[in-house]
Amino acid sequence: MTSTQHSARGQARRDEIVRAAVEVIAERGYRGASLAAVAEKVGLTQQGLLHYFPSKEALLIGVIQFRERTDTGGRDTTAEPMTMAATMGVVEANAHREAIVRTFSALLGESVTEDHPAAEYFRLRYRRVRVALAATLRQEWGDRLPSGLTPEEAAPLVIAIMDGLQFQWLHEPESFDMPAAFRAFVRLLDPKAAQ
Amino acid sequence: MTSTQHSARGQARRDEIVRAAVEVIAERGYRGASLAAVAEKVGLTQQGLLHYFPSKEALLIGVIQFRERTDTGGRDTTAEPMTMAATMGVVEANAHREAIVRTFSALLGESVTEDHPAAEYFRLRYRRVRVALAATLRQEWGDRLPSGLTPEEAAPLVIAIMDGLQFQWLHEPESFDMPAAFRAFVRLLDPKAAQ
Repeated sequence: MTSTQHSARGQARRDEIVRAAVEVIAERGYRGASLAAVAEKVGLTQQGLLHYFPSKEALLIGVIQFRERTDTGGRDTTAEPMTMAATMGVVEANAHREAIVRTFSALLGESVTEDHPAAEYFRLRYRRVRVALAATLRQEWGDRLPSGLTPEEAAPLVIAIMDGLQFQWLHEPESFDMPAAFRAFVRLLDPKAAQ
Repeated sequence: MTSTQHSARGQARRDEIVRAAVEVIAERGYRGASLAAVAEKVGLTQQGLLHYFPSKEALLIGVIQFRERTDTGGRDTTAEPMTMAATMGVVEANAHREAIVRTFSALLGESVTEDHPAAEYFRLRYRRVRVALAATLRQEWGDRLPSGLTPEEAAPLVIAIMDGLQFQWLHEPESFDMPAAFRAFVRLLDPKAAQ
């Protein structure tokens, strides 16, 4: 067996573990998502699971990366930007996957504490998504948005709105309309956008 | 001694504990901010401290409330709205108190996990701040902002931007300019605002 086959098999196994983790999170929530619960679901010992993901944080990062890959259809969004409509689609989809959004938001919160294992992941993710979103905005509107902002000024605001609205929504999922709030923000970026 | 004196003394003692907690957080960070460390600083046993704050989460909520009271000069912002300039001032001040912002953001993240003791606090805080900010925006611009949004549509976006930008800033405090990003957002709300 070549090492390429090895690593393809390893990747398939990792994906299987991540899918199991998504199910465990949906069933038991962020705190209940222990490595032991996930290991049991895929028929591994906890020791066996640690071979693929050395900590709970590493596994949760795997879950978030898996979600991102699914959201963007596996494309490299830095090379080939998403549209704002696709970004709106992500927000709509998020409103139907509370457990995953809760996991993302809880891990984001933890990641700002001292020496947290997910800090580097979020730092690099923010840099990458800012670049990808600036490309999206430039593709849509050129070097100036209708509001007068540059794509580079607007990109961190799009991310902040998505992250920030999730917290308000998670605290009142029944009554806070996250997609409507995001649409209001898109109207700020382009007052002529769909009302 | 009347019960009013009792409670005034209790409040003074609580404020003293909260100030000590702010110092401990600045010195040791969110994870190092144990009840034991705070108790030691104010010369109480841990048991004595629990009389005022029954858990670490309760103490951290106390810290955030204290910061809010200070930020608004003790005013009830629902009855007497802040200005957008004052809101900008809060963001500028936050950029100089990383430890407290880190504590706020970490606790916000934790609060969305199952049955977290700070969940109710954040739910009520979001409701209250949305109402206060809508009043601020209405005072400044009337029933429609220059961008066409109503104050009620814009208020949750202001909060989301503040919460969301803090995470990007906390992951790159040296290079991410949080006040500049917030000013860009204010220009979205009012394209004629100070450039």
